[in-house]
Amino acid sequence: MPAVSPLVLALGDPAGIGPDVTLAAFLRRRAAGDAAGGATGGTAAVPAFIVAGDPAALAARADLLGLDVPLVETTPEGAVAHFANALPVLPAGPAFTGRPGRPDASSAACVEASLEAALGLVTAGRAPALVTNPLAKSVMYEAGFPFPGHTEWLADRAAAPGRAAPHPVMMIWSEQLAVVPATIHVPYAEVPGLLTVDLLVETGRIVARDMARRFGITRPRLAFCGLNPHAGEEGTLGGEDEAIVRPAVEALKREGILATGPLPADTMFHPEARARYDVAVGMYHDQVLIPAKTLAFHDGVNVTLGLPFIRTSPDHGTAFDIAGTGRGDPSSLIAALRLARRLADAERATSQAPAPALARA
Amino acid sequence: MPAVSPLVLALGDPAGIGPDVTLAAFLRRRAAGDAAGGATGGTAAVPAFIVAGDPAALAARADLLGLDVPLVETTPEGAVAHFANALPVLPAGPAFTGRPGRPDASSAACVEASLEAALGLVTAGRAPALVTNPLAKSVMYEAGFPFPGHTEWLADRAAAPGRAAPHPVMMIWSEQLAVVPATIHVPYAEVPGLLTVDLLVETGRIVARDMARRFGITRPRLAFCGLNPHAGEEGTLGGEDEAIVRPAVEALKREGILATGPLPADTMFHPEARARYDVAVGMYHDQVLIPAKTLAFHDGVNVTLGLPFIRTSPDHGTAFDIAGTGRGDPSSLIAALRLARRLADAERATSQAPAPALARA
Repeated sequence: MPAVSPLVLALGDPAGIGPDVTLAAFLRRRAAGDAAGGATGGTAAVPAFIVAGDPAALAARADLLGLDVPLVETTPEGAVAHFANALPVLPAGPAFTGRPGRPDASSAACVEASLEAALGLVTAGRAPALVTNPLAKSVMYEAGFPFPGHTEWLADRAAAPGRAAPHPVMMIWSEQLAVVPATIHVPYAEVPGLLTVDLLVETGRIVARDMARRFGITRPRLAFCGLNPHAGEEGTLGGEDEAIVRPAVEALKREGILATGPLPADTMFHPEARARYDVAVGMYHDQVLIPAKTLAFHDGVNVTLGLPFIRTSPDHGTAFDIAGTGRGDPSSLIAALRLARRLADAERATSQAPAPALARA
Repeated sequence: MPAVSPLVLALGDPAGIGPDVTLAAFLRRRAAGDAAGGATGGTAAVPAFIVAGDPAALAARADLLGLDVPLVETTPEGAVAHFANALPVLPAGPAFTGRPGRPDASSAACVEASLEAALGLVTAGRAPALVTNPLAKSVMYEAGFPFPGHTEWLADRAAAPGRAAPHPVMMIWSEQLAVVPATIHVPYAEVPGLLTVDLLVETGRIVARDMARRFGITRPRLAFCGLNPHAGEEGTLGGEDEAIVRPAVEALKREGILATGPLPADTMFHPEARARYDVAVGMYHDQVLIPAKTLAFHDGVNVTLGLPFIRTSPDHGTAFDIAGTGRGDPSSLIAALRLARRLADAERATSQAPAPALARA
């Protein structure tokens, strides 16, 4: 693949905020003064990308928003030459027949086609990383779609023939903080029953491996939060930290992974504490999403670890309520594009040479 | 009481970091160029205070640290005139016979005497607010002390004859964020069973009342966190938010209190979100202590609401490991002194006149 092979962006639900932020991100491609569109991965520019999806949906949204965005139907190989002047689009899927904020029966089919086309480019080596705009789970469910979200879908597609799907691990990343919740969208009360040594060890392995091969951090430092306040105070405030978290950390250390914990979660996220690790592994959603979104609400990126390819996405939903209004903020998509570029470049460097450090700023 | 009546600071455990940070705070009394010692409550200076405790323990710590801090044994009424030149001390309790970092049998007696003397000044109206340096619960337990910590002790002392002790409510306050956890030092798994509508309503009432009379925020805005991720997504991610948090918020609204929630906790703590409320009420320790300490690790203040007097304390422990080393950071004590002064001034203003707004910066 050529050095400046563009990222591929799945358009997501064309009734949602995806088209808005896609157009806005494209218009900021020269914000850092990079006439080449930042294709080489500068952290301040928007790197070159090609959108997989319905070109007419993008054109209609540009009209609605009064944006002058020329589109060009092309391939990844042709995209970089166009990116300075026009938004490259790989046509995929049916025509979108809904309206902004009003998904109709075409929405789910558009989502599916844009993702499959984008995935095809990545698995064929024609794009170095996949970025996905939001879908709405309710829309996909109604259309009979068999996966709860992007992540499970991608894991299923990534399974080798006859093998189980890989274990996808969600990371929320920003320049300030990278976090991984060991459990995600489950009720508070169910978390203790879901935490096992095996889950934490498997999660830690995937995080350590992907931080090394994709973030270029040869020996990443993983800090595990305790479940209980003060990490249980040696068992007096709950037993899980000694019974589950500590054995998992010890097992990872025996494998040579730089794991620490269980640590009191409330004192893990100020600047001096964050300097001591590369990623914080939390036991539940709010424990690590709270500091992540406190520190980087607008430009957090959702990264899926554990897949055979790089996948990032903006850390927000379809926002049907503001789709087509011009109020969509492209910061998170831009951050997702930039991180995808960094990971792709780091992965290539890692696979070709001694890994360079790509520490968080 | 005179307008510049000094705060009273209970020395806490003389084997801990209390003497270090007390001396350091005193030495910074002119840091903002306020020759009068900031007694009138400027937010940048260290306001005048008198220490209740063993003067010899303070003098010995000053010697150990090589600090030139003259001490003067005096009363609150005499303290302000001295504060520019010497640290006022109200002698209280037995002589401390332990060493820095090494509490001995005298520690608990010193802690108790310093607190009782300080409390006596506040309840007699001779000092407008109480600030408490840390104690170590293990030291107090070993000495047979009947309360788990300062807060329960103060609540017990504050009970009217024949009445139950008031319900103390812990707030962690900084210029960035004020939070109240509805449950505190309990295991993670026990939290759902402890949350009741009554607990949340009672907590909300105390917070609203004290924010009005002591913070000068006439109609404080209380934002309640949901217990579950995404505040339970209408019950699909856990039922407590609809069954407990929402009815409590509705009950408080019927009383005229500006309460909102349950809100998804992960999107409550970035700057735009924080501008929408004056205090966040969390369901458990880490949920609100994480954002509080992420945003203000060194200068958070512990404020006890619900008591008949103002009480603040630094948001750290005795730190026996660094007591007497000079590495103690007085930021939190200074913040506790400044906030106590602000609250005392606001309470006086509130009781005398239409309340001025004292919004967080």
